[in-house]
Amino acid sequence: MPEQSSPLDLAEGDPFGPHNLPYGVFSTPDHTGHRRVGVRIGDHVLDAGAAARALGSPYAQLLAQPSLMPLLAAGRTAWRDVRRALTAWVTVPAHRADVEPLLHPLDAVTLHLPYEVADYVDFYASEHHATNVGRIFRPDGDALTPNWKHLPIGYHGRAGTVVVSGTDVVRPSGQRKAPSDPAPVFGPSVKLDIEAEVGFVVGVPSEQGTSVPLADFREHVFGLCLLNDWSARDIQAWEYVPLGPFLGKSFATSVSAWVTPLEALDAARTPPPARDLPLLPYLDDAGEEEHGGIDLRISVTVNGHLVSEPPFASMYWTAAQQLAQMTVNGASLRTGDLYGSGTVSGAEPAQRGSLLELTWNGRDPLDLPDGKRTFLEDGDTVTLTAWAPGPHGTRVGLGEVTGRIVPSA
Amino acid sequence: MPEQSSPLDLAEGDPFGPHNLPYGVFSTPDHTGHRRVGVRIGDHVLDAGAAARALGSPYAQLLAQPSLMPLLAAGRTAWRDVRRALTAWVTVPAHRADVEPLLHPLDAVTLHLPYEVADYVDFYASEHHATNVGRIFRPDGDALTPNWKHLPIGYHGRAGTVVVSGTDVVRPSGQRKAPSDPAPVFGPSVKLDIEAEVGFVVGVPSEQGTSVPLADFREHVFGLCLLNDWSARDIQAWEYVPLGPFLGKSFATSVSAWVTPLEALDAARTPPPARDLPLLPYLDDAGEEEHGGIDLRISVTVNGHLVSEPPFASMYWTAAQQLAQMTVNGASLRTGDLYGSGTVSGAEPAQRGSLLELTWNGRDPLDLPDGKRTFLEDGDTVTLTAWAPGPHGTRVGLGEVTGRIVPSA
Repeated sequence: MPEQSSPLDLAEGDPFGPHNLPYGVFSTPDHTGHRRVGVRIGDHVLDAGAAARALGSPYAQLLAQPSLMPLLAAGRTAWRDVRRALTAWVTVPAHRADVEPLLHPLDAVTLHLPYEVADYVDFYASEHHATNVGRIFRPDGDALTPNWKHLPIGYHGRAGTVVVSGTDVVRPSGQRKAPSDPAPVFGPSVKLDIEAEVGFVVGVPSEQGTSVPLADFREHVFGLCLLNDWSARDIQAWEYVPLGPFLGKSFATSVSAWVTPLEALDAARTPPPARDLPLLPYLDDAGEEEHGGIDLRISVTVNGHLVSEPPFASMYWTAAQQLAQMTVNGASLRTGDLYGSGTVSGAEPAQRGSLLELTWNGRDPLDLPDGKRTFLEDGDTVTLTAWAPGPHGTRVGLGEVTGRIVPSA
Repeated sequence: MPEQSSPLDLAEGDPFGPHNLPYGVFSTPDHTGHRRVGVRIGDHVLDAGAAARALGSPYAQLLAQPSLMPLLAAGRTAWRDVRRALTAWVTVPAHRADVEPLLHPLDAVTLHLPYEVADYVDFYASEHHATNVGRIFRPDGDALTPNWKHLPIGYHGRAGTVVVSGTDVVRPSGQRKAPSDPAPVFGPSVKLDIEAEVGFVVGVPSEQGTSVPLADFREHVFGLCLLNDWSARDIQAWEYVPLGPFLGKSFATSVSAWVTPLEALDAARTPPPARDLPLLPYLDDAGEEEHGGIDLRISVTVNGHLVSEPPFASMYWTAAQQLAQMTVNGASLRTGDLYGSGTVSGAEPAQRGSLLELTWNGRDPLDLPDGKRTFLEDGDTVTLTAWAPGPHGTRVGLGEVTGRIVPSA
């Protein structure tokens, strides 16, 4: 009998090696409905709660759960200790006999939304994106509003329609009105779009009436995911003045099933772009110990064809600044709060994170191998993937977020 | 020994008589932390779960709970049947011996937020309010945006900062910038305001990808409460273009502790105002069986002094239209979703539901017995109360929502 290779013997450079270890929640066909915390290693998922029990770990109670919520709430010391334990379980040869039976092939499990989304906030933090959108939607005014470089602009979205990667997205219906139309018409959106974003997942709550300073970012935020903020541009354009986006966004927001802990991205920290205007002290990150930027390289595909490569490092506002902004008025945080970075668009046309920008609101269709695209057609599948530089030349893979458009009900 | 009067012998015309029966969640000092569903009758709270058990009711499982969530999720038939049972418990003399020991004086209990807020949406449905705000904030443009009479404008707020009546509100800090200032400044809001609103509580969920037609409003919405959408006008004015209100609102939203079931308000149904423009079919309520308006008379007091009496019957858009709008794009509902009507302002100056309007953005201070007011000062207490016409000339009292401003942390 040939020696069987272990799922723990990963190819060199595997982006889901022991330097990564993202968390998710999975179930297997033989335990229908039985959700468990899983940790991705290579192309396998480790049943983390079962491993903790098998190895007599003190973290069994945090990990043997149907959701990430207890781990998220446990705080930074626990996050570090659990990660250290997991690293040992998948790297120390003595643990192999215990751990290997608890590995499930990725393609044999179902991945679930790994936390209950408490509040969902979406920001607007890429200068390139905001400038493009301003030029498209407000051609006669300044591209950026006067507040844009003074604070990270954000708004609340719908937490109840955040779905896990792989969930179909029903094309939304709503009102739209072209400037030349005498009255709005109703029907399925004809400008269904994506927004390539990074989502941040809050672990540790804060008290109402207090704020979270820049330096406490890592005490509250556990990790990040990829996020597609599906957007119906025609519905949005008609509704959004004066109170902001609502139905143009609220029908669905997709997130990747894997949450990458911030600790896995320490080597990807990078200085944010130079700021053009002085910042108020609560947002001024010039003296922070840790660089606020994160060097994530995102890829956007439509039906498997690459359409954009947005660079997250180019974001004007950082996730720490967004957290400081969100709480500076005393708004509290809850475990499971999710906030999106805003569409990631780089300076180059091929780095734009939305079809609105890539096609300049439909004027310049994309020429894909399966046909021209302005906005999304029924049946289209959009997938975001990303990686970041890891330690010692490795890559840290982020989970993908994918979704397929199905026709209006 | 004189015969003791029963708490169930209510004065004629008591607005919390058996025709009302609002639901809440309470605890008593002798059971610290033990939350129970309560039903208000007169100045007492009936321990509804204990009553259901004592009387062998089949609804004990819905009522013997620490929150209203199971009852909310149970649906319209259960809501009607439970209400029928409760009416019998507090009116049929044969039940008195069982029921009376389960009544707690209102001033001896603590009332809690009775449901977990899932998503919170705030609308903008009073034509008088929207017109006033438009004139104040956009004096050079049309008061109403072009979309206003075509759809009920709304946006998502922060669910995690919804607090129950009686909770202190910490004055928020944030950026503000007067048009003449060269750059924004940071500090406690100097234009802290209220918005007198009615909140609607969703019971029965809906599926993502489907919409809820006007006619199904009563299948999903359980009841209503009073809601104060605290607003920092200076923070809001600087931040809200282009993505809408965020920190100017997200620091706190107060709701009354009592949820009045829609069934208690059947006699208060009233036709909405005539609409100036034709409505798209999904919003056209001309043929609906039930009138969309509700005749609630709200009073707003500051430190006990009456400052406004906003008439809810004057709202241009109804709660059923708001639910239809919120879901027409396929956004799902969850048990515990809360949506606010938007500030209730009538046609008359003394009917305006915000200090922004009552003082015309500070130009015309209110002359209260304890001093002049433009916006709220630290220590001010704002209380909203309301009543609606009930059957046979009765009044249906709504629970109050009150909150006191405490200084910035």
